[in-house]
Amino acid sequence: MAALVPFSLLRNYSPFMLARPFVVVKACNLNFSKSVVLPLPCRRLPFSTRAAHDEQAAAKAAAATADSGAPTIFDKIINKEIPSSIVYEDEKVLAFRDINPQAPVHVLVIPKLRNGLTELAKAEGRHGEILGQLLYAAKIVAEKEGILDGFRVVINSGPTACQSVYHLHLHVLGGRQMNWPPG
Amino acid sequence: MAALVPFSLLRNYSPFMLARPFVVVKACNLNFSKSVVLPLPCRRLPFSTRAAHDEQAAAKAAAATADSGAPTIFDKIINKEIPSSIVYEDEKVLAFRDINPQAPVHVLVIPKLRNGLTELAKAEGRHGEILGQLLYAAKIVAEKEGILDGFRVVINSGPTACQSVYHLHLHVLGGRQMNWPPG
Repeated sequence: MAALVPFSLLRNYSPFMLARPFVVVKACNLNFSKSVVLPLPCRRLPFSTRAAHDEQAAAKAAAATADSGAPTIFDKIINKEIPSSIVYEDEKVLAFRDINPQAPVHVLVIPKLRNGLTELAKAEGRHGEILGQLLYAAKIVAEKEGILDGFRVVINSGPTACQSVYHLHLHVLGGRQMNWPPG
Repeated sequence: MAALVPFSLLRNYSPFMLARPFVVVKACNLNFSKSVVLPLPCRRLPFSTRAAHDEQAAAKAAAATADSGAPTIFDKIINKEIPSSIVYEDEKVLAFRDINPQAPVHVLVIPKLRNGLTELAKAEGRHGEILGQLLYAAKIVAEKEGILDGFRVVINSGPTACQSVYHLHLHVLGGRQMNWPPG
């Protein structure tokens, strides 16, 4: 059954997550909204349902097999072996919604062919074309999602940046006020 | 004299900033570190010296002239009319340190020729090549700065994403644990 569950759900139900009651995570967000002198944006953060600590743990676990060359959950999404909510697709690029969104709009943009791009740190000159296509696709996604007036693109490379799947992916986030610093 | 002051300093001394005592901003960060159950990463955030609210105000102000086509502070940096700490430079791209860093390493990567790219939302198919060059330059910057094992790239497009200079730029951040959500 696990193979039918999109990756974000798998991450949500990691052993680490189960060891940290959900209410604690929610409480963190409430405290955050009270203390950071940003009441409006923070009150609009029902999308932040997982503590950063969980994300860091997931990223550390993922990094252990980063260079193995093994397929990731994204291969199953590309091959339509597991379902995803596709926002945009062309010959080179696939964009689908993150199931654990951190904003009203949260879409992942990936190259269909990984071709060595497990992470941005592995980019070489030969990747220039696909890197440009990915960034342009992020704009197309923003347009399709109606957030062209305000959106953030984020790329995490490596465990300390919270990368949890070793297939290069761009996060496109919008639909709420984004804060600073960016995590 | 103002023209000699790099843009981040100008933003630091905006009227909005002056209206909010510095100690309040620091207190926010302390409260944040106590409440978000992430003591280690948050204690390592001495770089977050400006409240997100200030960034949002700066972004709103900048958006008012976003489509004017007027030069930005980046033109003066490209032309070496005002100083910057350059990390990487080639024919098409310039990378220099953000003077208001949000991490031990915080570098901005920009196209030397704006060519309509005031923001990522304005990207067209013709921009594919430079978009790829910018993203690849971000990797080169991470390599030069010794953070190839973990870094985050962030692009803000529009006021709700905290874009404050209307010349497309990529933030490259690293040297500390990055948190989630990304702002």
